[in-house]
Amino acid sequence: MKLLNATIDSITEQNKTSRAQAKERLDQLIMPHWALGRLMDLALDLAGICGTLHPSIKRKTIVVMAGDHGITNAGISLFPKEVTVEMIRGFVNGVAGINVLAKQAGANVKVVDMGVAGDLSDLSENGNVLDRKIAAGTRNFAEEEAMSREQAISAVEAGINVAHEMSNSTDLFGTGDMGIGNTSPSSAIIATLCQQPVADVVGRGTGLDDDQLQHKINVLEKALALNNPNPADPIDVLSKVGGFEIAGIAGLVLGAAALKKPIIIDGIISTAGALLAGRLAPKSKEYMIAAHRSVEKGQVAALADLGKEPLLDLQFRLGEGTGAAVAMNLVEGAVAILTEMATFSEAAVSEAK
Amino acid sequence: MKLLNATIDSITEQNKTSRAQAKERLDQLIMPHWALGRLMDLALDLAGICGTLHPSIKRKTIVVMAGDHGITNAGISLFPKEVTVEMIRGFVNGVAGINVLAKQAGANVKVVDMGVAGDLSDLSENGNVLDRKIAAGTRNFAEEEAMSREQAISAVEAGINVAHEMSNSTDLFGTGDMGIGNTSPSSAIIATLCQQPVADVVGRGTGLDDDQLQHKINVLEKALALNNPNPADPIDVLSKVGGFEIAGIAGLVLGAAALKKPIIIDGIISTAGALLAGRLAPKSKEYMIAAHRSVEKGQVAALADLGKEPLLDLQFRLGEGTGAAVAMNLVEGAVAILTEMATFSEAAVSEAK
Repeated sequence: MKLLNATIDSITEQNKTSRAQAKERLDQLIMPHWALGRLMDLALDLAGICGTLHPSIKRKTIVVMAGDHGITNAGISLFPKEVTVEMIRGFVNGVAGINVLAKQAGANVKVVDMGVAGDLSDLSENGNVLDRKIAAGTRNFAEEEAMSREQAISAVEAGINVAHEMSNSTDLFGTGDMGIGNTSPSSAIIATLCQQPVADVVGRGTGLDDDQLQHKINVLEKALALNNPNPADPIDVLSKVGGFEIAGIAGLVLGAAALKKPIIIDGIISTAGALLAGRLAPKSKEYMIAAHRSVEKGQVAALADLGKEPLLDLQFRLGEGTGAAVAMNLVEGAVAILTEMATFSEAAVSEAK
Repeated sequence: MKLLNATIDSITEQNKTSRAQAKERLDQLIMPHWALGRLMDLALDLAGICGTLHPSIKRKTIVVMAGDHGITNAGISLFPKEVTVEMIRGFVNGVAGINVLAKQAGANVKVVDMGVAGDLSDLSENGNVLDRKIAAGTRNFAEEEAMSREQAISAVEAGINVAHEMSNSTDLFGTGDMGIGNTSPSSAIIATLCQQPVADVVGRGTGLDDDQLQHKINVLEKALALNNPNPADPIDVLSKVGGFEIAGIAGLVLGAAALKKPIIIDGIISTAGALLAGRLAPKSKEYMIAAHRSVEKGQVAALADLGKEPLLDLQFRLGEGTGAAVAMNLVEGAVAILTEMATFSEAAVSEAK
């Protein structure tokens, strides 16, 4: 709790001087005013986050937080729980969606075992997976709370520590996730914190049909009634209906914000984590960049709550950090506009009449 | 006319076998079905365009077609005509929006003088600008036709030739434009070919206020009434209310389609050119990739007419090829998904129940 509180206390606003200086320069670049729209808004944020007119974002890391979920026993996912481990092996072998999109964006992928049920000891021993396992999966929150309050705090603090450990090799973070069943805790967190009906924030996950979707809604409605998480207490929400990887993402976001590094938020699982971080430390929102609009409608609700407009809408619903990886190209573009374009006077171009 | 007709005749549909094979592979990749949405749709197109399961898109070129416009005398732009030449010098010096975004995407920028009013001979002599000048700017189509029918055909054929010349060093084309005043001919072309009211396809260009916008609408309405272009004859439309760079873009698109190479369409000027190409050779539409949704509403109308959904919406209104450059990252991502991800059986991942 000490690390969590210290981290929350250390998160400040963006640097307003750098933002203002960036605005002044962007206003004078050789183009019609603000003609590169959203990338210029993003450039302002990057200047404010990094506290400089020359943000460095060369070293990029997608942190894939992984965990399993007891609630898969309630039949809320099409895929068996074993797939969490199988996919992590795919990540290590470089053949999954996140690998190929991170490679395109020039980003590294780091997998963190926050609470996977299966055995990953071979991968953590050879350094391919960071072992921060809190427990071998959460409990089934359709029947009892997902984890203890102590576990929830430990998991968030583990995420904060991951941000610090990676900080030496990372200028730009992206969030990612792996965990069969994890749209269910994400939707439960979003329903609670955004005070939305479950049916409005639950999606088809990996591909539920109409009946299966209705079953998922029923399960989550009952689980929320049973656990009664307190929306004013993010740690209570996380412990009762959350997941270890979601806690890890929340911690990573807090850590990045404390380190004044930009962090790109991926899909619904990442956005649930970011929402928790935003409730714990509202100023952390100033360090978040929303990558994309997910097919999962709970993500859209959570982004709106965070006051974030996503950069992309590519009909993604994969997670893993794939949206964050694609958005890294846009962050690079925004920095290039700020740092490499000339002003009207530098280029001797005539201005508007 | 011979080259134009031969090019139109040589454009075929996408390769359906490669498309079907790509679909089969994409259906089996280790993720929920089609969970990378629009990038998977794009991967299908790329397989169909290139006729292979392994499209090569390493060598990328943004072709910036440049020209001036007599209609600037009618006061439809905020910027003086001299800016066309000044911006081209900026492109050559690498300090404009297109330079920094093309660099981010790993693309080359090639500027073609299709009809610039000013003198660029120093830049064409040292190879920085390709001289394909048809004339020193169009005539003012508020008073007479913009160019002769022969000039229109020559300009389109020049664009086709540029595609052939660049073909040896280009796998993936992007369109770009430079020319003060060129949203006016673009809107006039779109209004005519899409049979839309002028007011519905005219935007603020480089930043007109409400009164200036109304003036632009009035000028274009009168110009269309005066010239009466025939919507069934794209070359008639181009010659009466078009521009040399727009003709060059139309030719570039036709040339790329004939060469079976993908071409990314940028903003309103490029989309007006693509619309002409699509009317001249409807199958050429199968080779076009719509980069982004522009702030200029005429572009949105033209994309809808072409049956294209843009990949990005970043509130761009710059042109130069900037949207196409950013979209090149998405094309790379799409190819990476198709060529580098593993299937469930290859990766030994369990499938959905």
